Amino acid sequence: MSKPKVFEKPIGVKDYLPHAVAKLRRIERQTLECMNRWGYEQIITPTMEFYDTVGVASSTSDQKLFKLLNNRGTTLVLRSDMTAPIARVVSSLLKETPFPLRLSYHANVFRAIEEEAGRDAEFFQTGVELVGDPSAEADAEVVALAIASLKAAGVERFKIAIGHVGFLNGLFEETLPGRPEAQEALKACLLGRDYVGYRELLRSLSLSEPVLKELEGILRLRGGQEICDQALQLSGTATAKASIQHLCEIWDVLKAYGVCENVLIDLTMIGDFSYYTGMTFEGYAADLGFPVVSGGRYDNLLTQFGRPAPATGFAIKTTRVLELLDGVEEAQPERVLISYDAKGRAAALEEAQRLRGEGVSVVTERVEAGQQITNSADRDGYATFISFVGSKGEQSK
Amino acid sequence: MSKPKVFEKPIGVKDYLPHAVAKLRRIERQTLECMNRWGYEQIITPTMEFYDTVGVASSTSDQKLFKLLNNRGTTLVLRSDMTAPIARVVSSLLKETPFPLRLSYHANVFRAIEEEAGRDAEFFQTGVELVGDPSAEADAEVVALAIASLKAAGVERFKIAIGHVGFLNGLFEETLPGRPEAQEALKACLLGRDYVGYRELLRSLSLSEPVLKELEGILRLRGGQEICDQALQLSGTATAKASIQHLCEIWDVLKAYGVCENVLIDLTMIGDFSYYTGMTFEGYAADLGFPVVSGGRYDNLLTQFGRPAPATGFAIKTTRVLELLDGVEEAQPERVLISYDAKGRAAALEEAQRLRGEGVSVVTERVEAGQQITNSADRDGYATFISFVGSKGEQSK
Repeated sequence: MSKPKVFEKPIGVKDYLPHAVAKLRRIERQTLECMNRWGYEQIITPTMEFYDTVGVASSTSDQKLFKLLNNRGTTLVLRSDMTAPIARVVSSLLKETPFPLRLSYHANVFRAIEEEAGRDAEFFQTGVELVGDPSAEADAEVVALAIASLKAAGVERFKIAIGHVGFLNGLFEETLPGRPEAQEALKACLLGRDYVGYRELLRSLSLSEPVLKELEGILRLRGGQEICDQALQLSGTATAKASIQHLCEIWDVLKAYGVCENVLIDLTMIGDFSYYTGMTFEGYAADLGFPVVSGGRYDNLLTQFGRPAPATGFAIKTTRVLELLDGVEEAQPERVLISYDAKGRAAALEEAQRLRGEGVSVVTERVEAGQQITNSADRDGYATFISFVGSKGEQSK
Repeated sequence: MSKPKVFEKPIGVKDYLPHAVAKLRRIERQTLECMNRWGYEQIITPTMEFYDTVGVASSTSDQKLFKLLNNRGTTLVLRSDMTAPIARVVSSLLKETPFPLRLSYHANVFRAIEEEAGRDAEFFQTGVELVGDPSAEADAEVVALAIASLKAAGVERFKIAIGHVGFLNGLFEETLPGRPEAQEALKACLLGRDYVGYRELLRSLSLSEPVLKELEGILRLRGGQEICDQALQLSGTATAKASIQHLCEIWDVLKAYGVCENVLIDLTMIGDFSYYTGMTFEGYAADLGFPVVSGGRYDNLLTQFGRPAPATGFAIKTTRVLELLDGVEEAQPERVLISYDAKGRAAALEEAQRLRGEGVSVVTERVEAGQQITNSADRDGYATFISFVGSKGEQSK
């Protein structure tokens, strides 16, 4: 193993320079403020958690967890999401606080193996958890809040696709009973949005013609409210029908929120988090191939922490929103450069203080008497130059 | 090793509940805004760095670093401060950007061993680095900015003690030549502010009476500008005299900033960071035994990253500022609870949207017709209740 060079950082992690940070911070602030207006309050949890509790409960596969030992020999992980840590807090520090709980966060999370695929090993998420409410109203609230949050962040064109893990589970259980491998393989195709592979796999399974048609038919179950009606016509199980009914209710509430133009129903969608138990959703921006937000209902996770409760929530991939808004100009504060010599110092620093008090960004620099303060290549960032060299408070633009 | 219970988190790390987060975020925002008004721009670096580069360059001792292996077998560390990572960025991504560079940050940092002393293994720092300016003006600027930042964060009563590593180094080298162990032991006493131990140690060193008096005398070198004059009377080396001269210049600039009431000169102060090369400072709040800010000049660190440059900066211990302001009430946004039944839903969600647009924090809840919305124990947090149950938009306070 060769030593890393001094200017290197680990693969899969990033430095964010001022221009990017200004944008990232603006996205973070406006998203959190939106969540706050919906009654969600921020919490912060530690970067490190116990492997045996939060690590195991997280939806991240074991080989993707960053692990380390503390000095007592216990295995810790760098958090891979915020849902499991929040479930821990809800069941411990907040265990006396009545439901429903509305919590928000902005945090960096860690996924070890993705560095090899050129993906980020550390990235930012901004999200919410609504704990203690099993209703379709709660699911619709987090979908509507995801939409409001993306708009607040400055994302203009996007669609939220909502589905339900119960629908596909019920349908596959009915049509492919006793064939769990076939069910898993089909789900893997859907998760990867590999619809060609899905059709090929179906044809290799020696299914009856009606079942084949039915399972091919679900690929068309993407659209508006009419999809719910179509899905109810499919010979689904009670589980599948109840799932569709729940989605219909969510759709009704989303209509009341007035956000249906941003929503489509996609019954082919499989949430990639193992802990989802009900509605799941993903948000796609116009120009981006991967989701900028994902979420869903997870009614079993809190049981693992000793306070059983239904829950629903989402995480915006803040780092992806940043990439999406890469070309968008951020408002820059006016910057002033004040130069001074020994004689002008007191007046210069006093003027700097006055301007900063008005919210102006001011850099001061000491120069020797007679030295020119203009014609320097690195002075592009300043709107105004003020000189306290020789004379007092001479201003140029 | 017994398994951790599900509700546990690792020792030395914290959960911050909404009330604390609101305060922490306010401190963070106001501090960073202040730094921005002084022309410092934020950067963000990764949580993980290479042990061989940033880990080794950091001022944190090896056994205090959190180490982990990436999947290539390279040792990584969780950053223990932001100064070394910023030195890496200044020497790589920013290597074409001309000096002086003014950078700010807010970040969590990690120190492994302190968990055993009941201290934090993860905590927040908000700070700046001013890179490329060797002058006393630059040192004074960061001291004045530390004062402005603490005031912006809401810290009212505090003192910044400034010293210089060159003064004690020069004086000890002159009075205790060839006795490095004695020098280190005396410095350790001063670092721990153990003045009794310092005196006892001096008396055990078999020193001549003039040297003994001189080395005891430095314990009195704490105060205002007069301390510089007194120190210059001491028979110091050229190093010690140049150090005092530099401090005098810093004091002059701080006078121009009008902040001397918050500053004292303390020539007994030893910065606890091994990379300091010049002026060092620490800020103490009235009611807190440990520093809330520390900083200083480090002119050698950037050489290790291949872009030699003088630099000076500080880090506010944001988590300690949070503790200090624990009793201070934060402004709370007005919160409204809107209850609705099936019939009132559309009007209720529309009203919620209208109020959120005005910046009000609104929680909505679905209730069944006839259900009362008042008299619930967990409704203390709301200023206003609006009911869309049965009738439309009935408001109560």
